[in-house]
Amino acid sequence: MSDEEGHPDRHEIELGAVLSAIADPLRRHVVATLARLPDGSERTCASFGFPVSKASLTHHFKVLRHAGLIRQVDRGNSRAATLRRDDLDLRFPGLLSIVMAEEPDE
Amino acid sequence: MSDEEGHPDRHEIELGAVLSAIADPLRRHVVATLARLPDGSERTCASFGFPVSKASLTHHFKVLRHAGLIRQVDRGNSRAATLRRDDLDLRFPGLLSIVMAEEPDE
Repeated sequence: MSDEEGHPDRHEIELGAVLSAIADPLRRHVVATLARLPDGSERTCASFGFPVSKASLTHHFKVLRHAGLIRQVDRGNSRAATLRRDDLDLRFPGLLSIVMAEEPDE
Repeated sequence: MSDEEGHPDRHEIELGAVLSAIADPLRRHVVATLARLPDGSERTCASFGFPVSKASLTHHFKVLRHAGLIRQVDRGNSRAATLRRDDLDLRFPGLLSIVMAEEPDE
């Protein structure tokens, strides 16, 4: 069952929702960026510097959270996102590598 | 360059287009079904028996074709689809296995 923040349990993560989430280039960039960081690294939404409104940013991260790609935790006046690497690697082996391979390392 | 039927070359296949194409459950089912057949197997659109209009079916196969997931060839009064397995395995290793793992073998 999803928790009150909309994080699905590992076994509830659905391929269709994951694919829809990362079909969007902005969201795919978030996933690729988090995937390149050391495991468990946190990034705030704002830290990505996307030229979109705060409402749009909130929406994109909500889609990623509800699909099961990231976890978000409150850090006072911002929310920090971490990649659900273990869950994704177990459910969809190779998917994160595919997403990372699209963008050369920065 | 895509040919006149809208088949992109291997190097032109874009991850975003592929993910958008297979985010749809009907299209994902087509890919999973073709992926389980022997390499090079052909299936007509109608053979899948989807309860959708012919126009909708044509649209779904066009999306798969333009994204680079399938090739379609004219067979007189129908079009036959084959999976671009080699191209997909080279560009996005593991993706077909992820799609196949979603549905148990029939």
